[in-house]
Amino acid sequence: MSTPSSPKAVLLLSGGLDSTTTLAIAKEEGFQIHALTVEYGQRHDFEVKAARLIGTRWGVTEHHVISIDLSLFGGSALTGSLEVPQGRSEQQRSQGIPVTYVPARNTVFLSLALAWAETLASFDIFIGVNALDYSGYPDCRPEYIRAFENLSQLATKASVEGKGQFRIHTPLINMSKSAIIQKGTELGVDYSLTHSCYSPQQNGRPCRNCDACLLRQKGFLEAGLDDPLLS
Amino acid sequence: MSTPSSPKAVLLLSGGLDSTTTLAIAKEEGFQIHALTVEYGQRHDFEVKAARLIGTRWGVTEHHVISIDLSLFGGSALTGSLEVPQGRSEQQRSQGIPVTYVPARNTVFLSLALAWAETLASFDIFIGVNALDYSGYPDCRPEYIRAFENLSQLATKASVEGKGQFRIHTPLINMSKSAIIQKGTELGVDYSLTHSCYSPQQNGRPCRNCDACLLRQKGFLEAGLDDPLLS
Repeated sequence: MSTPSSPKAVLLLSGGLDSTTTLAIAKEEGFQIHALTVEYGQRHDFEVKAARLIGTRWGVTEHHVISIDLSLFGGSALTGSLEVPQGRSEQQRSQGIPVTYVPARNTVFLSLALAWAETLASFDIFIGVNALDYSGYPDCRPEYIRAFENLSQLATKASVEGKGQFRIHTPLINMSKSAIIQKGTELGVDYSLTHSCYSPQQNGRPCRNCDACLLRQKGFLEAGLDDPLLS
Repeated sequence: MSTPSSPKAVLLLSGGLDSTTTLAIAKEEGFQIHALTVEYGQRHDFEVKAARLIGTRWGVTEHHVISIDLSLFGGSALTGSLEVPQGRSEQQRSQGIPVTYVPARNTVFLSLALAWAETLASFDIFIGVNALDYSGYPDCRPEYIRAFENLSQLATKASVEGKGQFRIHTPLINMSKSAIIQKGTELGVDYSLTHSCYSPQQNGRPCRNCDACLLRQKGFLEAGLDDPLLS
């Protein structure tokens, strides 16, 4: 567990299954967590509330919610300019990058995390990207993460002055969704607090039919666990 | 000059001397300009008004102002958490990166430009960074720009699907401030509309004593021109 002398890390926390598991792993690794939630013009502000609750439960040192209206640019079902696809088969989901892709989203998120890390004199950033059971987003792949890590060393006063080397931690990147759920369950993650749905109902209940719901269902099924969100 | 069939470019426009000159150059090169101004918690919103006026004068196709509160993270004189230094000599200015550095600022700005470019199906981004007469900011150097360009190819659906290669245009990067002013003057830039000061007076008049004012003064002096902002 972390102590006041533990190294600081900035962690991108959406309040979803992946970022919450990443938080549990980063805590287990002994980091003091500075959680960053980006409110980016997604349609569901209950997600931000979930992220806040999860941050509190896991004893983060600090939690910032930063707003940025990416819907201004359009081009994504997750910022409201396109329809979220429903009921796609595994085969359909494996064909190309879907409209739920948000243009350059992880680049925007990581650049904000980098800005905060630098002011904290931290060189550790956690992001719960996953390149196995995922929607094929380009900015979730290992080669993308390495390119951002490389950029970070050149981008900041802290690294140029030789105070440290940035590291982008992606503990989930090569894990299946079921392995993520098993790991989180071992670490005590309460998945009833997490959300995954791209297209929730008015009351916040998941639609059970978008790509994110389908990937989550498959993960719980393969892990041999019930999803507490659906009980 | 640009026409409706000209290629689209996203241009980061602060309304300062450098970004305005970059706009004039991008127009001369025949691009349709989509100007992006980031309101990032700087203390002077007259800067945003200047950027809007300059965008209109130069006939940009579209202009978005996006707000993001980088002052949340602190760590910079330009977001209000530290004092802007005054009256530094050229020698003092050459020693280290000053407190006016905003952590990871150009990485945040370029990631937003990248997001917009992708939705426009544009692969051209202009930024008025300069690595000669500048304040030593790490994210103004050619090696940083190349790293961001490399990241862009991996970060987006558009590039991963082979629709194009992003190019970060930095026409000013190796120019002296006086050469920038001479070039802009040739192209018809009205420098009375641009601002540079880090610490302007209540009425928006420049302080004439911060690093940005001193660099600007030196530039006009060496160009053999009067700064219309001071007349």
